[in-house]
Amino acid sequence: MGKNFSDFFLSSECMIRMASGWFYLSCLLLGSLGSMCILFTIYWMQYWRGGFAWNGSIYMFNWHPVLMVAGMVVFYGGASLVYRLPQSWVGPKLPWKLLHAALHLMAFILTVVGLVAVFTFHNHGKIANLYSLHSWLGITAVFLFACQWCLGFAVFLLPWASMWLRSLLKPIHVFFGAAILSLSIASVISGINEKLFFSLKNTTRPYNSLPSEAVFANSTGMLVVAFGLLVLYILLASSWKRPEPGILTDRQPLLHDGE
Amino acid sequence: MGKNFSDFFLSSECMIRMASGWFYLSCLLLGSLGSMCILFTIYWMQYWRGGFAWNGSIYMFNWHPVLMVAGMVVFYGGASLVYRLPQSWVGPKLPWKLLHAALHLMAFILTVVGLVAVFTFHNHGKIANLYSLHSWLGITAVFLFACQWCLGFAVFLLPWASMWLRSLLKPIHVFFGAAILSLSIASVISGINEKLFFSLKNTTRPYNSLPSEAVFANSTGMLVVAFGLLVLYILLASSWKRPEPGILTDRQPLLHDGE
Repeated sequence: MGKNFSDFFLSSECMIRMASGWFYLSCLLLGSLGSMCILFTIYWMQYWRGGFAWNGSIYMFNWHPVLMVAGMVVFYGGASLVYRLPQSWVGPKLPWKLLHAALHLMAFILTVVGLVAVFTFHNHGKIANLYSLHSWLGITAVFLFACQWCLGFAVFLLPWASMWLRSLLKPIHVFFGAAILSLSIASVISGINEKLFFSLKNTTRPYNSLPSEAVFANSTGMLVVAFGLLVLYILLASSWKRPEPGILTDRQPLLHDGE
Repeated sequence: MGKNFSDFFLSSECMIRMASGWFYLSCLLLGSLGSMCILFTIYWMQYWRGGFAWNGSIYMFNWHPVLMVAGMVVFYGGASLVYRLPQSWVGPKLPWKLLHAALHLMAFILTVVGLVAVFTFHNHGKIANLYSLHSWLGITAVFLFACQWCLGFAVFLLPWASMWLRSLLKPIHVFFGAAILSLSIASVISGINEKLFFSLKNTTRPYNSLPSEAVFANSTGMLVVAFGLLVLYILLASSWKRPEPGILTDRQPLLHDGE
């Protein structure tokens, strides 16, 4: 019995170490991909689209792709993975929950500033808002993100909700977390596509002649897709999930009322 | 012990019935959404874009959105869910595998015909192929679909692969199945967006004035997203997964060599 017990801890330890090794390698790849997504979008806007300003001009619009990629994809993706950090597998869950909520709040703030940039540019130039499918899908993703954050805060951080309600809502919360990221990626892809058709029409080298800007921005879009898929893989790969209560630690409810 | 045993079967039976009820309700919704996605796309092409032909003209292009939505989203989504049918939970797995592979093959054939439609139209009209981000992402999704089908056929249907290899590849197969659907949805969204910008430029009521065609096609895009999310929900909702061997039936390996 004693041997079984020590074997169990040895294999748990070994499992965590192996999982940690791959996890950190994936995190390194994720960090590199995420940084590249943001830097490539900045470079695209700076080098080919004239840079940034906050004055209602097209240079104000240029903040929109950068902030949406940063907020709705990179920060959102990173924030989603907090509970996959091996450090979060044991001990109290509250600090990780606070980190999860805080990072998502930062992602949401970046997103809102990104929306302000495009709405102000449109209003300043008397351009219609929210007509394209890109905008319909994007605003749906942001709306669902806001609902998800508020519901998550109310149910998983505030102490009133019962364990039963939390257990019921947890898989829905995880599913919608992944779904919102998928919608964001679809919005980013359609947004980059739309922006290139706008920017490269009436030029000597239109989009269909694949000028260097088009190759660069298309590649940025493909990077965003690769980043999103890696986030979803880490999120859904079972070996990196916080073990169920009782497997590695003493029985620990999903969330203590006092947490 | 006898009572526990009968309790166990009673609760398993009850679990299956409850899960089945919700599953069939979701299937009804899924079937309605999927049919609407295809019918709406046909109606869009027929009513606003002049209908269909197979002669290299723009009317040949009109097959492209219909066949891609039907193949890469609706048939693909339906085919993915074969193992979620409660009937597939017990008994031999081979018939369900054959159905899974056959439906995916149908989805792939529709997809290839959809690609032939757009390439022929482009070549006929001397329009460049594969320059937009929509096309880069779409062709990546189709390429991954082909790899996934061939790998799935080789590993899970042909009898040579070991149980170890199958168990190793199964979660990767499931993940890529969901990932390819997500990429398809992003491709469809960017495709509808692009098509509307093309079709509605230089008209009295351009895209940004939201004519009825734009509202209809945008709504079709949102329906495709809703369909895709429902497929992913059913695919990832654990209560509808085929129970692990030994829970409802005698121990049954993932795949017998003889199957």
